[in-house]
Amino acid sequence: MSLIVQKFGGSSVSDADGIKRVAKRVVDTQAAGNDVVVVVSAMGDTTDELLDLAEQITGDPSAREMDMLLSAGERISMSLLAMAIQEHGATAQSFTGSQAGMITDAIHGKARIIDVSPHRVRTALEKGDVAIVAGFQGMSQESQDITTLGRGGSDTTAVALAAALDADVCEIYTDVDGIYTADPRVVSSAKKIEKISSEEMLEMAASGSKILHLRCVEYARRFGVPLHVRSSFSTNEGTWVLPSPDDKIKIQEGEPMEQPIISGVAHDRSEAKVTIIGVPDIPGKAAELFGIVAGAHVNIDMIVQNVSTQGSGKTDISFTLPIVEGKDALEALHAAQSTVGFESIDYNDQIGKLSLIGAGMRSNPGVSYKFFEALHKAGVNVDMISTSEIRISIVTHADLLDTAVRAVHSAFDLDSEDEATVYGGTGR
Amino acid sequence: MSLIVQKFGGSSVSDADGIKRVAKRVVDTQAAGNDVVVVVSAMGDTTDELLDLAEQITGDPSAREMDMLLSAGERISMSLLAMAIQEHGATAQSFTGSQAGMITDAIHGKARIIDVSPHRVRTALEKGDVAIVAGFQGMSQESQDITTLGRGGSDTTAVALAAALDADVCEIYTDVDGIYTADPRVVSSAKKIEKISSEEMLEMAASGSKILHLRCVEYARRFGVPLHVRSSFSTNEGTWVLPSPDDKIKIQEGEPMEQPIISGVAHDRSEAKVTIIGVPDIPGKAAELFGIVAGAHVNIDMIVQNVSTQGSGKTDISFTLPIVEGKDALEALHAAQSTVGFESIDYNDQIGKLSLIGAGMRSNPGVSYKFFEALHKAGVNVDMISTSEIRISIVTHADLLDTAVRAVHSAFDLDSEDEATVYGGTGR
Repeated sequence: MSLIVQKFGGSSVSDADGIKRVAKRVVDTQAAGNDVVVVVSAMGDTTDELLDLAEQITGDPSAREMDMLLSAGERISMSLLAMAIQEHGATAQSFTGSQAGMITDAIHGKARIIDVSPHRVRTALEKGDVAIVAGFQGMSQESQDITTLGRGGSDTTAVALAAALDADVCEIYTDVDGIYTADPRVVSSAKKIEKISSEEMLEMAASGSKILHLRCVEYARRFGVPLHVRSSFSTNEGTWVLPSPDDKIKIQEGEPMEQPIISGVAHDRSEAKVTIIGVPDIPGKAAELFGIVAGAHVNIDMIVQNVSTQGSGKTDISFTLPIVEGKDALEALHAAQSTVGFESIDYNDQIGKLSLIGAGMRSNPGVSYKFFEALHKAGVNVDMISTSEIRISIVTHADLLDTAVRAVHSAFDLDSEDEATVYGGTGR
Repeated sequence: MSLIVQKFGGSSVSDADGIKRVAKRVVDTQAAGNDVVVVVSAMGDTTDELLDLAEQITGDPSAREMDMLLSAGERISMSLLAMAIQEHGATAQSFTGSQAGMITDAIHGKARIIDVSPHRVRTALEKGDVAIVAGFQGMSQESQDITTLGRGGSDTTAVALAAALDADVCEIYTDVDGIYTADPRVVSSAKKIEKISSEEMLEMAASGSKILHLRCVEYARRFGVPLHVRSSFSTNEGTWVLPSPDDKIKIQEGEPMEQPIISGVAHDRSEAKVTIIGVPDIPGKAAELFGIVAGAHVNIDMIVQNVSTQGSGKTDISFTLPIVEGKDALEALHAAQSTVGFESIDYNDQIGKLSLIGAGMRSNPGVSYKFFEALHKAGVNVDMISTSEIRISIVTHADLLDTAVRAVHSAFDLDSEDEATVYGGTGR
């Protein structure tokens, strides 16, 4: 008998039929001899409707009250799911984040989990109940106020509960069959990945793969929780994200899998490139610039510093950042122009980032060559480069990104013969 | 400086504009130098929408999960109201029933309050915040599950908080100007009552007046909380419901008012009359019958036992009960027919009850005469009669009820020269 945590997003429970479908799957999982904890997001459009109501009231809502408002969404979906499970003759109890012991800090809207004490969930499981837990929400330790966890919150709730309950697996149900070697909407021959290490999955998520949030993968890796990303519309095996080789053996009987060199290709259109032109080429200037950007709470991704033009004493520094944070960064930089002493700023949001990810590239010196050759042959110019031990990322013009993704995917023999299946939107 | 508890029902907060209007009133009350606690119901149709969702899932929802579901409604209205108050530059915090310390028993759907510990509400008030509390909901002491208080729940929340906080007044905002001497939809010349004792208000509520729930009046009377029933659409004084003459002096400076003989006329169409025909006229049979009805959890209102027909050894017993409980009562009675030994049952839901209420009738022997004379002149036949020290009730045919109400209202000089103002529907 296993303990399984199943997480269903908003698109899986968008209406009564969706809730009934999820209930059936939960009941089947329990009937197969497992203890089941279900983490559920708010129904389809609920969050948007609540945000819309708040907007009609104020342009500047208090974060505490916004969390109180949004946390109503999961109450609705989780109690309805409990009823739907009971309709099958099984027993179920729903728990709010605070009832499930999700203790967070007090940063409303993007709270971090600081402790998980799921006593009531455990008691429910011991009674033979399905325990349903509201995703995305918790209670602050300090003020005992309702908090929400922000983007990727429900996935993170599921992984945190799985870790606290020492679950055998945390299943993340989504509208795709699993993690693909590239986005199937760009590369129609993309293949579903059967198993991937959480280290690689981290790089995929950080490089623009939308299926799992970085935060949830980080948490799963840290606490050794095996993830199984699968479709709520089929019973096919999805993608296993495994924290360590030992887990691979634990999950899948038989031999540990041979690590493929490359896991997949991720891409990201959400970043912009900022180039600071004519920065005095003296020590400390780069740090000064990045300090200004960090002061505006903007996360920088890739950084390239050009070689100082001979004798000019000036250099150019480029970096990428999320487009949504571009305005804040530019304002902060412009305000500091005279202090820092740079000449001008160039801002370009027509860029795309492509990343090749694979733990196998550590020991495969030919990877970079094959990667850049594929891009060159496809006519893709490379604007910026950054690498980690298991990733190479490049920035190119946004219009060339799809071509680049297909070229690289094909060069590393990732293409499948079958068409990938894609279903609907995504939840929170 | 006073501490004022204000309760707004679902029709007052049915949309963003309603919430803004309520916020304005709350802010004005605070600006006038008062501490303000606001109790709020779910927005207009929210409860119906949630019930509809549940119905799509199951015909037999678990009571625990239904309470979890419905309690989402107040979270939405109360957090939006907090935002709307903050928009005026005031500070506000919203609290769920459990955060506000509303401790109940574990009877889901109609929980009773067993303790109120509003520590967090007090702290918020001390900080100068408006405290907003979800009506209708609490947490069970035993299981720490979310409960709802059932009909009249939000009013009861407000009164219970007012009692626990020793508030100066509990204002119940509604869609009418106050309590009228009769239902203005039936008697257009009905007058607004300025002050009424909670004893009389209890009789009014028990006799079909819909403005205040019996339960909330009982609570207010028991804990000595002065109620002020008033319109959320105007700033006019409404009706004061005062637990004792001392409070009358406390609230309204000057002389205690002269108690009028009659406070008002209430009517009720929600009851049916059951007549048990041919009951053996031996001691204990009536008790046996009422025991059967009580066993089906049905509340009996008026009872009439006819004189035994000479020498037959049989008698008829009639009583009234809520129409909604008629089916249960009839089933229980039919099942016991042979045991009790009665002949047949007559069921009539085409009846109407009229009640005349006034503490002054205690010492006015002419009241009954004038009452029955008015009914007689209006051609209203009387089917059943029951009385208390401050009330006379009669049952007549449903079709004659409006005529009867107008005749009695007029006979006791309750008619006003102005038309009464009626606004919209009612909340929970």
